[in-house]
Amino acid sequence: MTSSSSHDRLLDRLGEVAVRIGLNIAPGQQLLITAPLDAVPLVRRITEHAYRARASLVTPFFSDDEMTLARFHHAPDAAFDVAAGWLQGGMANAYRDGAARMAITGGNPVLLSNEDPDRVARANKASSLAGRPAMELITNFAINWNIVACATPAWAAQVFPDDAPDVALARLWDAIFLASRVTVDDPVAAWTEHNTTLHRRADWLNERRFAALHFTGPGTDLTVGLADGHAWAGGSEPARNGIVCNPNIPTEEVFTTPHALRVEGHVRATKPLFHQGTLIDGIEVRFEGGRIVETHATRGLPVLERILATDEGASRLGEVALVPHSSPISRSGILFRNTLFDENASSHIALGQAYTKCMLDTDGQTPEQIVARGANSSFIHIDWMIGSAEINVDAITQDGGREPLMRHGEWANPV
Amino acid sequence: MTSSSSHDRLLDRLGEVAVRIGLNIAPGQQLLITAPLDAVPLVRRITEHAYRARASLVTPFFSDDEMTLARFHHAPDAAFDVAAGWLQGGMANAYRDGAARMAITGGNPVLLSNEDPDRVARANKASSLAGRPAMELITNFAINWNIVACATPAWAAQVFPDDAPDVALARLWDAIFLASRVTVDDPVAAWTEHNTTLHRRADWLNERRFAALHFTGPGTDLTVGLADGHAWAGGSEPARNGIVCNPNIPTEEVFTTPHALRVEGHVRATKPLFHQGTLIDGIEVRFEGGRIVETHATRGLPVLERILATDEGASRLGEVALVPHSSPISRSGILFRNTLFDENASSHIALGQAYTKCMLDTDGQTPEQIVARGANSSFIHIDWMIGSAEINVDAITQDGGREPLMRHGEWANPV
Ligand SMILES: [Zn+2]
Ligand SMILES: [Zn+2]
Ligand SMILES: [Zn+2]
Ligand SMILES: [Zn+2]
Repeated sequence: MTSSSSHDRLLDRLGEVAVRIGLNIAPGQQLLITAPLDAVPLVRRITEHAYRARASLVTPFFSDDEMTLARFHHAPDAAFDVAAGWLQGGMANAYRDGAARMAITGGNPVLLSNEDPDRVARANKASSLAGRPAMELITNFAINWNIVACATPAWAAQVFPDDAPDVALARLWDAIFLASRVTVDDPVAAWTEHNTTLHRRADWLNERRFAALHFTGPGTDLTVGLADGHAWAGGSEPARNGIVCNPNIPTEEVFTTPHALRVEGHVRATKPLFHQGTLIDGIEVRFEGGRIVETHATRGLPVLERILATDEGASRLGEVALVPHSSPISRSGILFRNTLFDENASSHIALGQAYTKCMLDTDGQTPEQIVARGANSSFIHIDWMIGSAEINVDAITQDGGREPLMRHGEWANPV
Repeated sequence: MTSSSSHDRLLDRLGEVAVRIGLNIAPGQQLLITAPLDAVPLVRRITEHAYRARASLVTPFFSDDEMTLARFHHAPDAAFDVAAGWLQGGMANAYRDGAARMAITGGNPVLLSNEDPDRVARANKASSLAGRPAMELITNFAINWNIVACATPAWAAQVFPDDAPDVALARLWDAIFLASRVTVDDPVAAWTEHNTTLHRRADWLNERRFAALHFTGPGTDLTVGLADGHAWAGGSEPARNGIVCNPNIPTEEVFTTPHALRVEGHVRATKPLFHQGTLIDGIEVRFEGGRIVETHATRGLPVLERILATDEGASRLGEVALVPHSSPISRSGILFRNTLFDENASSHIALGQAYTKCMLDTDGQTPEQIVARGANSSFIHIDWMIGSAEINVDAITQDGGREPLMRHGEWANPV
């Protein structure tokens, strides 16, 4: 629990870190913020810091869980194939004209768990389709962008179900402030140091140029081939508009592009996946030639199957990421039920679209050439967690050799 | 004062009237809602009623007074020439694709009164310019649209400054519910009857085809020539998409298009004007050849002068409207400090853009041809009040005759 004035100070710091470290917003930039209604106080702090950093115009888009549910409860069936293409198109235009993007996460992780999975899937697909032009500018890293979290009562109730609402909310805020490194005396210095650590690990992996990663553990024996000319990334990085930003706050991962055709074996998820308001638990899948050919889940299987059917790339991998099991988020022992946190507590893989920035020498290459090197293409990008203290990772070298990369969830060698 | 459950019932009715009478939303239509953050409960009622009426997708845009002020207090000076053209363009695309529009009014009427008038004017101009394509679809009545009001603490404090905040808010809600005709047993029937009354008055005026209106009273001796082939409108009307809607809730006016070149004489405003967060009081202007050639105001003169300088059409009239002084809003005796209410308590004129629907036989005519008939063109449309119990209006007939139209603010002849 934090006192009210201490909460206000930490909220202001989170806003400052999101603007200065997360976005590193440039003078004259416009800023688009998407946020749940409960995030109004954080959005106000972010807005003030953005204007102090000489942003020209901050435009917030607040979403409301009640309005989302009203659609599922009262709208006609045909509505679920409709999306706000005009708004997604407008946002894509904003990014092309130089705007930065901030997404505030914190909605109810199971908002749609009791809704018809078919309608949920259709609504998600319509919205992914409409959002593709904007999403491409994000996955191509054309602009500086950032995701940061806001505790909300509905999210806190899911994370700390045994606590009173105000206690749960305060505990979730404490966890967010800690993971976002704003509880230290000088958050900006802490982030600079943290970025250096992540850069060192990514640089070391880039020097080694491994051919594949082999994950083993309970229920898992998975070989993830890496794309030709893959690049490891982690921490702060320059977007294509030249601005060095930290797309995720918090972030603990180093990550790269798997080869879409070279993933073999089976893998068991180590945490449930909360995707667009639905819960998918007990995931086990088997890959052949890069493609998922067998799918199990103890909960939410219909939703998972619909996700995999989105398009050709939805059943192949677009990202593989390594996170030591001793990361601060993991050590907190909290299952956040939110990808931004859970993926930074655990090594993970992502179904769907690859990040162009995780491929070397793409300048001048066509999208087809980049795909031919193994980078997956899809409307979706969904991370799910496969790391734990029981997982070992071996690196396979280009000449077929093998060396330990992680043991019991920890890096086998320091950098 | 209303009890909490009675408030909830009236709020729900206001949402229903806004959707069914205001928009008359069609199955499959998308709906865009702009609203202050304090309007969340009303937006939720509107959203549910829209989905029940088979809307496909409701997208809310919430604005926040604190974020608006943060820009004036912290953003760099160049920011005030920037607007969200990408968003206005996206909204225009939504309207072209058939979406309906709901605007919820209720912000602080004097939010920007202490800010630099030059910056306020520049920000308004940038936003009017960016919003022109969307605004044209509204003024052309291409789509069904509606403005409805939500009481907010900041607005209530301006209307009832001597009351405690909760009393002021409850009194403002009571006034809104009453003026919006949702306190009767059957609001839909009440609106049908009210629309019939307004249609009868507009039909009578259209049959008479007067050449001009002559307003006289304290400080006022103004002749407003009417455009060639002007049409009087009032109450519900079909938009060009075929949907019969009530653009304003409440509405008490019948209104038409003045001739942009044929306004002569001087006029004194009978109420202060609250425009985009600034107050302009004690307005007196003189027209020659349709154009304002002399401008006085006891408060906010710099803002008024900047408004008139927006473009050529900003100092000419685009609307003249007649409202009997005995209208329910006027009888309430409340100065609402909000145009939607104050213009429906008083005869008024509007600077700037004319409504195409207030011109006969425009199908197949170019914008230039419509302008040649006297319909004014401008980025702005700003209503201000010139009616009171002390104002008489004579109608000038096409052959130069004169007959009494309003005496002491009331219609001289029943219809
Ligand atoms: Zn990742
Ligand atoms: Zn990812
Ligand atoms: Zn009017
Ligand atoms: Zn008007």
